[in-house]
Amino acid sequence: MSEGFSFRVTHRDGGARAGELQTPHGLVRTPAFAPVGTRGAVKAVTHRDLLGLGAEMILTNAYHLHLRPGAALVARAGGLHRFIGWDRPILTDSGGYQVFSLRDRRTIDEDGVSFRSHLDGRLQRLTPESATDIQVQLGADIAMVFDECTSYPVSEDQARDSMERTVRWAHRGRERFLAIAGDPCALDGEVTNPGQAQFGIVQGSVYGRLREQSARDTVALGFEGIAIGGLSVGEPVEVMYDVVAATTVMLPDDRVRYLMGTGMPDDLVECVARGVDLFDCVLPTRNARNGQLFTRAGPLSIKQARFAEDPRPPDPDCGCYTCRRFSRAYLRYLFVAGEMMAGTLNTLHNIHFYLDTMRRMREAVVVGSFETFRQRFHETFSRHRRPPLDIF
Amino acid sequence: MSEGFSFRVTHRDGGARAGELQTPHGLVRTPAFAPVGTRGAVKAVTHRDLLGLGAEMILTNAYHLHLRPGAALVARAGGLHRFIGWDRPILTDSGGYQVFSLRDRRTIDEDGVSFRSHLDGRLQRLTPESATDIQVQLGADIAMVFDECTSYPVSEDQARDSMERTVRWAHRGRERFLAIAGDPCALDGEVTNPGQAQFGIVQGSVYGRLREQSARDTVALGFEGIAIGGLSVGEPVEVMYDVVAATTVMLPDDRVRYLMGTGMPDDLVECVARGVDLFDCVLPTRNARNGQLFTRAGPLSIKQARFAEDPRPPDPDCGCYTCRRFSRAYLRYLFVAGEMMAGTLNTLHNIHFYLDTMRRMREAVVVGSFETFRQRFHETFSRHRRPPLDIF
Repeated sequence: MSEGFSFRVTHRDGGARAGELQTPHGLVRTPAFAPVGTRGAVKAVTHRDLLGLGAEMILTNAYHLHLRPGAALVARAGGLHRFIGWDRPILTDSGGYQVFSLRDRRTIDEDGVSFRSHLDGRLQRLTPESATDIQVQLGADIAMVFDECTSYPVSEDQARDSMERTVRWAHRGRERFLAIAGDPCALDGEVTNPGQAQFGIVQGSVYGRLREQSARDTVALGFEGIAIGGLSVGEPVEVMYDVVAATTVMLPDDRVRYLMGTGMPDDLVECVARGVDLFDCVLPTRNARNGQLFTRAGPLSIKQARFAEDPRPPDPDCGCYTCRRFSRAYLRYLFVAGEMMAGTLNTLHNIHFYLDTMRRMREAVVVGSFETFRQRFHETFSRHRRPPLDIF
Repeated sequence: MSEGFSFRVTHRDGGARAGELQTPHGLVRTPAFAPVGTRGAVKAVTHRDLLGLGAEMILTNAYHLHLRPGAALVARAGGLHRFIGWDRPILTDSGGYQVFSLRDRRTIDEDGVSFRSHLDGRLQRLTPESATDIQVQLGADIAMVFDECTSYPVSEDQARDSMERTVRWAHRGRERFLAIAGDPCALDGEVTNPGQAQFGIVQGSVYGRLREQSARDTVALGFEGIAIGGLSVGEPVEVMYDVVAATTVMLPDDRVRYLMGTGMPDDLVECVARGVDLFDCVLPTRNARNGQLFTRAGPLSIKQARFAEDPRPPDPDCGCYTCRRFSRAYLRYLFVAGEMMAGTLNTLHNIHFYLDTMRRMREAVVVGSFETFRQRFHETFSRHRRPPLDIF
């Protein structure tokens, strides 16, 4: 497996990197952000909208797709790319995060996790091996190893137990992946993407020693890429930034680094500064459907009454379809009226903002002006205050 | 008013006509179908999607837009085209149909209708004059006169009373429209589209004599176009076809003929055959969101289990984005999973099917092969039986 998969860093600027992630379904230029299409569709926008916005990869969720429509069905349809009609790179999350979110509906043992389906309550089981098998059948370009996502806050002892289990599971998940790579008949099902790569996940909560041990042990397993998991789960952002910085320095320079489930636009900037190459997050899409638009000035809540007759676009400097074509007044009206188009237009804008921010960062790294970009970004973007709209 | 508005029949084939409807916001080639964007947005698709599909006009609803965000607000924003960001032709329904649908929440008197808003229960009033004022402020290219939509079934006496009131109201609505055209200061608000035209509406239920009287009296008022109202309200399709045929022959040849709120694809074909030029209907969009796709073979219910692993597009002969890119299996999955994308992809297909059917009819009229088109259409399209999928 993992033929046709490669990563190389092409430029550096301080801790920030620009790179090229080659997959069986095409190139992803890093730093990159993958919009989240949990169930095989990014909510409120079509694939062609995503292509138009310049999305080079999407994320889907193996847990959700396994429960419905089923990995075997997807494999029979020729794999995930073919089933969902998206022929660019795809990453499947293993479902570990989702399963551990079920709290009252799951029990963990050394072998794996038993849980009740959120769809029909039926008992399900995931192990490092079965999570691998499911993802091999789905055939995304990147499969994630099955991990235990440590909650926050957690004691160091608990974090160690959890992290060490994740390492043991990573070992089993990797073995399974390599076994199938060596002999596709090892899989009870179809290998739909022989070029699939598998990423390991560093855990260890906020404890530096645990992150170090996890990074060392995970890297040793030879994954094609390394993810940083267990962050954006409630810890202060400064803590998150510190853990990211402390983790990336322990990762091999030639492997792509993926920060899972993060974050706000300023988080992306800070984590690129700390050496992260790849991100995913539901924020731009979910918040769009809740009426929050990301702008250069910070988040803007379109439902506010003060926008009722505001003829300006959400972000006058933005080149997206929504901003070129529609006013805050219309977008507010659509949101208040509950029109589907509110979700679509807001999502188009937010994904554009995220992808555009990534492209600007990449360009800044390439030309060696990342620090200037970073400062300017923070000068206008504020997540905490009411956005200083007068900058427009 | 109505400068820049004109209609001419360019071709005829039997009773069918092809024509050009010129409006202040561009040309509509007839026979034409206007997708319904009741509240200023066609559900599940963007304006640019509609343009891509070749939509030349959309319909919005003055009643809904008056309740929210308000006609005055829209006028202050520069009118409906500007407010919603759609710069092609727009038609506003007066809201008569909606008000009369409220049944228990409205009372009719000779002067107008009082009703409780479906949004907040507040008492509202619409008269032929105020419905005109609202639409002049909205500034669509075509405003509809305020009528009473007769329900079905109804006695001839009741139908006569209702139709005669509609004629009296049409007189008042037209007077008001012409008064504002003569002196924009007559309007307490802004005239946002000086080129707006106003259409009258023929009522009379299924009674030929009443339709005849209504057509004569309505035409006499000098409207720029004439609509046929009070159909598709529960009567058998054959009755609808007969009423349409009996009505169109009484209408002046040089006025555009608009059949309101109709219908199924085969209805469009039969009514074009009977001389109708313009249609609107929620069926392609609403049914799309409910999982019904229109195909050459007839409606297809995408939620059916038999499509779970069907790799074919909904209609293999269709050139729309949905059919070129996605399988029945994926569309069924999206629908069952409740993904927003189901609504969008189904809507794209259905609007394409409707607009494409209109284009084919137009072309057939132009080249004189409408009767052949009509026969071939009915040979494959069936609304009643399970669609004969083996034609694919």
